[in-house]
Amino acid sequence: MAITVPGFEFAGISAGLKKSGDSDLALIVSDRPATIAGVFTTNNVKAAPVKLAIENIGSRKGRAIIINSGNANACTGLQGFNDAKEIIRETAGALGVTPGLVYVSSTGIIGKRLPKDKIINSLPELVKTLSPDGLSRVADAIMTTDTFAKSFAKKIRISSKTGTIAAIAKGAGMIRPNMATMLCFIVTDISLTPAALDSALKEAVDASFNMLSVDNDMSTNDTVMVMANGALGNKPVGKNSPDFPKFKKILNEITYALARMIAEDGEGATKYIEVAVKGARTEADARNAAKAVAGSMLVKTAIYGKDPNWGRIMSAIGYSGAAITENKTGIFINNIKLVHKGQGTGKENVIQKILANNAIVVTIDLGMGSKTAKALTCDLTEGYIEINADYSS
Amino acid sequence: MAITVPGFEFAGISAGLKKSGDSDLALIVSDRPATIAGVFTTNNVKAAPVKLAIENIGSRKGRAIIINSGNANACTGLQGFNDAKEIIRETAGALGVTPGLVYVSSTGIIGKRLPKDKIINSLPELVKTLSPDGLSRVADAIMTTDTFAKSFAKKIRISSKTGTIAAIAKGAGMIRPNMATMLCFIVTDISLTPAALDSALKEAVDASFNMLSVDNDMSTNDTVMVMANGALGNKPVGKNSPDFPKFKKILNEITYALARMIAEDGEGATKYIEVAVKGARTEADARNAAKAVAGSMLVKTAIYGKDPNWGRIMSAIGYSGAAITENKTGIFINNIKLVHKGQGTGKENVIQKILANNAIVVTIDLGMGSKTAKALTCDLTEGYIEINADYSS
Repeated sequence: MAITVPGFEFAGISAGLKKSGDSDLALIVSDRPATIAGVFTTNNVKAAPVKLAIENIGSRKGRAIIINSGNANACTGLQGFNDAKEIIRETAGALGVTPGLVYVSSTGIIGKRLPKDKIINSLPELVKTLSPDGLSRVADAIMTTDTFAKSFAKKIRISSKTGTIAAIAKGAGMIRPNMATMLCFIVTDISLTPAALDSALKEAVDASFNMLSVDNDMSTNDTVMVMANGALGNKPVGKNSPDFPKFKKILNEITYALARMIAEDGEGATKYIEVAVKGARTEADARNAAKAVAGSMLVKTAIYGKDPNWGRIMSAIGYSGAAITENKTGIFINNIKLVHKGQGTGKENVIQKILANNAIVVTIDLGMGSKTAKALTCDLTEGYIEINADYSS
Repeated sequence: MAITVPGFEFAGISAGLKKSGDSDLALIVSDRPATIAGVFTTNNVKAAPVKLAIENIGSRKGRAIIINSGNANACTGLQGFNDAKEIIRETAGALGVTPGLVYVSSTGIIGKRLPKDKIINSLPELVKTLSPDGLSRVADAIMTTDTFAKSFAKKIRISSKTGTIAAIAKGAGMIRPNMATMLCFIVTDISLTPAALDSALKEAVDASFNMLSVDNDMSTNDTVMVMANGALGNKPVGKNSPDFPKFKKILNEITYALARMIAEDGEGATKYIEVAVKGARTEADARNAAKAVAGSMLVKTAIYGKDPNWGRIMSAIGYSGAAITENKTGIFINNIKLVHKGQGTGKENVIQKILANNAIVVTIDLGMGSKTAKALTCDLTEGYIEINADYSS
């Protein structure tokens, strides 16, 4: 059954940006102004649509997001900026809303001018095909090297009404802690105050997309946006509302589920890898250790090769900057202890068999305190090289 | 003709640590106490021999370095520490010198106990084969996944005498800025004060091995040591001596040449890549931008695939943390301009042909100031995955 979110309509079509003819243009529209929050790439080279979104999101209000794949509109200078603005104006016109409430988002190759006319010429069809059950078509249209569309939704009881939070995302390369070539759009009919929505989004992104690493490259286009249109009719959830922790919990579940899908779909990946650190002295230590292990090419290739080469994990923990004591460190693979007090347990043969699984959990107990963190990644394979060594044009 | 350095003898043999039977044990001996300086991994997980060397090098004096490949003696606990100490004691005994003047260095797999008896049993043969022209045998014996031995030597005029600086190194994986699974040993007959030797070494390492990246993984065993035995008979070169800048220049040349060899021999590499940044506002900006581009998996795979995908270079510059202005940035590949003021020059077809070369220089002009830096790396290929996915035992 298709996911629907009261007050939202969705469309996804082919505008001819992808040579393959696959769908590449998507639209999300709220029937009323929604509260909006966003988290964007911290790359100093930002795509034109990201710069515009950062400018416009100060209003905390939005009605529509138009998204294209096939071209990132990054490193395109003033021209790219003007192209993005024109798409916003034309989309606003086609929807009959003010341009200030429309956001544009782009993903694909960097440094080529956006074929804006293809997008503008496709607007009538895009608007005509808007439908409450079209969310999956948005998920399809934003894919680049993704091998499957990514969406996740949950129902949540808010002041005796049942609201919905639904989200779609795309990966799958140029992914590293502090975001990725990664787009994620979240919609909900629950009403929240702008401050609560903003705070919940930042927290959810910090524990999911910011802990996700495919190749340590941070993109120019990373964007996570959430629109809350209040169609549920609940009293706006504020930061002190008893419903706020519940909303944050569900939002965290959703963003973590999508981050996991992106890791599973990492370019060339054969295995999903979760790195769970516990016993850290500080939360920063836990995050740094988890990210270092998840980001290590040597760890990722070892897991691909079913190689219980735990020295590479120890080494990554060692350079992570986290406070560690070598002879307090324990390492588990899918709950089998591989390292005890900094030294091998001799279970390499058992672990080697476990590494045939396509979901691997590396648990690291630093034995230094009580803080925890999880990072998400995938193995590194010849497939990654093949995908990324291809000539771009 | 073999490289010789007055007052030094060298040996390299097989002690049976490598299954292949290739040579795996080396010895460098000075006929008199030499001034010694070292730079070691900053990884919090340090191999036993590195911990010992850091302890002992405070004396600034050394006579011998014994080096084994095939086993890193890292993550081996107190046992590993005692094994390393015993090797030092036995080597000192075999040479008739005090143990405090002997250093041990190890490279190879992490987390397996060092087969110390094989090393100790081989000491008589090792000492017996010491020879002034044996430096190349040391270079052979310290190789792990290296495909060629790495050595470099230069003559230098110091106070109307001709001194020699000779060095050997090994790579080739687990290499990242701030050192690598990388060993480098430098010997010279020139006399220097301990402070001058230390300062010259740190400066040389900073501009070479610390700018070298193969896979962003920092090893537990990285070591660069220099022994200056004064056999030349010159007045010790101090930091204010007119000969000091000359010594530093030659030492820099040697470490840069060896760092380049390590990049050329990067695991699975088909191309050597130099990333030269100019026009940076600060030296830190120049270094960070160069290291980010050299460390980018997407840039390295693109160059492997002869793909002039300059957006990936711009993106890496963007997340490097360096102060940049997108529309001031220029990018050149082997002197052909690919990006002008942040946008493509349309020379992709020319650049694609140039990328067939096996030595690629990416020059980035940030247009923000006058500072420069160079980073060294190699392309990322299926070969890297194959080498590192292999089961370790």
